Amino acid sequence: MNRIIVQKFGGTSVADTDKIKNVAKIVIREKENGNDVVVVVSAMGHTTDYLVKMAKDLTTTPSEREMDMLLSTGEGVSIALLAMAIQSQGYDAISYNAIQAGIYTENIHSKARITDIKTDKIKSQLAQGKIVVVAGFQGMTEDYEITTLGRGGSDTSAVALAAALNATRCDIYTDVEGVYTTDPRIVPKASRLEEISYDEMLELAHAGANVLHPRSVETAKHSNVQMRVRSSFNLNNLGTLITGVEKMEIYKPVTGVAADLSQARIVVCNVPDRPGVAAKIFSCLADKKISVDMIIQSYARKISNTNDIAFTVNGCDLDKTLETLDELKTELNSDEVEVDTDIAKVSIVGAGMIDRPGIASKMFETFAKQGINIKMISTSEIKISCLVNKEDAKRAVQALHDVFELNSDVVADVKGTLPDV
Amino acid sequence: MNRIIVQKFGGTSVADTDKIKNVAKIVIREKENGNDVVVVVSAMGHTTDYLVKMAKDLTTTPSEREMDMLLSTGEGVSIALLAMAIQSQGYDAISYNAIQAGIYTENIHSKARITDIKTDKIKSQLAQGKIVVVAGFQGMTEDYEITTLGRGGSDTSAVALAAALNATRCDIYTDVEGVYTTDPRIVPKASRLEEISYDEMLELAHAGANVLHPRSVETAKHSNVQMRVRSSFNLNNLGTLITGVEKMEIYKPVTGVAADLSQARIVVCNVPDRPGVAAKIFSCLADKKISVDMIIQSYARKISNTNDIAFTVNGCDLDKTLETLDELKTELNSDEVEVDTDIAKVSIVGAGMIDRPGIASKMFETFAKQGINIKMISTSEIKISCLVNKEDAKRAVQALHDVFELNSDVVADVKGTLPDV
Repeated sequence: MNRIIVQKFGGTSVADTDKIKNVAKIVIREKENGNDVVVVVSAMGHTTDYLVKMAKDLTTTPSEREMDMLLSTGEGVSIALLAMAIQSQGYDAISYNAIQAGIYTENIHSKARITDIKTDKIKSQLAQGKIVVVAGFQGMTEDYEITTLGRGGSDTSAVALAAALNATRCDIYTDVEGVYTTDPRIVPKASRLEEISYDEMLELAHAGANVLHPRSVETAKHSNVQMRVRSSFNLNNLGTLITGVEKMEIYKPVTGVAADLSQARIVVCNVPDRPGVAAKIFSCLADKKISVDMIIQSYARKISNTNDIAFTVNGCDLDKTLETLDELKTELNSDEVEVDTDIAKVSIVGAGMIDRPGIASKMFETFAKQGINIKMISTSEIKISCLVNKEDAKRAVQALHDVFELNSDVVADVKGTLPDV
Repeated sequence: MNRIIVQKFGGTSVADTDKIKNVAKIVIREKENGNDVVVVVSAMGHTTDYLVKMAKDLTTTPSEREMDMLLSTGEGVSIALLAMAIQSQGYDAISYNAIQAGIYTENIHSKARITDIKTDKIKSQLAQGKIVVVAGFQGMTEDYEITTLGRGGSDTSAVALAAALNATRCDIYTDVEGVYTTDPRIVPKASRLEEISYDEMLELAHAGANVLHPRSVETAKHSNVQMRVRSSFNLNNLGTLITGVEKMEIYKPVTGVAADLSQARIVVCNVPDRPGVAAKIFSCLADKKISVDMIIQSYARKISNTNDIAFTVNGCDLDKTLETLDELKTELNSDEVEVDTDIAKVSIVGAGMIDRPGIASKMFETFAKQGINIKMISTSEIKISCLVNKEDAKRAVQALHDVFELNSDVVADVKGTLPDV
């Protein structure tokens, strides 16, 4: 039996028919290597925006079920065109939408999770020597309802297919050359990582690196699928392998530096220092689907018997958060809510920091030397995040990148666009 | 149980979001009349052309299977948008592609015939008060392969659904006001027919009237589905009802006049006058899927014991026809093949001519008075067709329209575009 390679191409990689021809070449190259190839594609370039615009012309509140019906046509176009492009090169190919590919999800629209993939049809086509082109981002329910997977959907489709097919690897082709030690737009000497562990990639993704959506990495980690992120426009390098930490040799304590400028900080001042107050705040926020990132509770003031609770949320959830806090006003007996949107979360990530003390202090010293004030700190086993002023973010990233010796000898050749999900 | 009305809207009726809003209003009006409504839609305006163009960028010979995958996305967009437009007016609606609607076809691509429609899901949605929006033109095989129905496909989907649902009527909304006594671009005083029989409509369609594809009319006749052709841009008139002749009162012997300028005439000269020669020619043409329209075999010449066989084919099949005849050359022992593309087939159609003699002679006299030469004649029970020179076609139609008293008092207000299929 041949090895199976799953390849995924995002919207920018299939944005027009010339780019689709380029993708066909990459696919055929892998087939020529003697592998069975399953290709997952997103909708072409701006198709989704175009479809969303038409829906908005009709209604401000389209039903999620019909939005899923509408958006799923986007991949319907790209899979058929890619199959034709492959066939025109003399290779046998067949396109499958989610129903044909047997990608089952929960019965939830716009953000369903994959529950099962029935791979018999795909396997039977591979056995006949065909390249199978599968629609990413979409799924079906038991009742033939069409669902979509939400953010990071196509990457997740690819990884889930790779897991279900027991594939050797899942290659995510995109418009960046791989995962970098930091954003090359901030640090031109950022270096491409040859490999990175699932956990580091997850922390980097959560810390603001936009190469992969955390969800696909979680799926890969859970199923132990080896992922590779690489450029569909430059095949000269192999990109970055994302794999289990046990397979890696760790040389440096810090793998990457990331900055997230989308956060907002909220401080609820002078809340009573009694059990259940924090629980009340954060359960109410969770009920409204607001994700809270960093949380810090100050020591209680002895005289007033109150303390302050500070936390960060994504900027787009700020209004909803303030509404929620307003509803809790009487209950919390808080006299003041402070909001700060002029912040950036700067993080260092590295599986190597687990056994090496002093990484945190080295980070704080670096900030001190630069005169950068730290507003909040949070840590995990393999990540340290500091909240700083927005204006200090770039300098902070550059300094950390220097101090932790992540610079490359070459200037990264990366376009200024973020990869699509 | 409510009456069920099936409505079909072609690509020009859903060409943009404003037109889709207009369609939503028409649909809701029917629902407000107390009917259950199933709506069949084609792809938006030029979507199909756009998709075909992209496919041609990739290959000159796209596989029919992948073309079907590609084209079926067109209706995927229009059904979702129409469902949203209906919902935004406060009515419950759900869109179904062919797989969800259970429209089964033969396992043939690009021109499949519908074999069965499993209506349980549609009926269950109707029972919940929903308007069901179904993708026209597409079907599925037992194996979940997507097929398309070819020319006249969406009309055929609508009629087949009406038959399967035992609907009261199938309304075909298009950009003309109904079926006319002849093409109003040729005769401005052409009158809209209030009703026409299936057979007359079939003959008119075959004779060159482009309002409906014969296939949908055949399906309607077979299942006794009442069809109505009407304008989606002018609801002030009811268009034309297409129904069984037994339900109609016939006043005039001739219902309509049509001209078909797409034919080519071929004469195979001096073929041996022995059994099997005509069979040979026409079975070979049939094998190559070439439809022959009129056929005339001359009397055998006594001296040479040969005769001439003349027939017409669609102009686009001319090259294939001549190739076929060339292959048969030796066998036929024919020394000459004449081709004439400067012809038009002018037909009069009417169920009323069955019991009234003299209609044919009246037609020929009209031509004689106009100095129009007749090159070939063929007749059916309810149609008489004459082949004339192309330049005489318009004059022939106008004269016949006069003679058979088909003129209306008002000038037809019809746009110069042909309806889409």
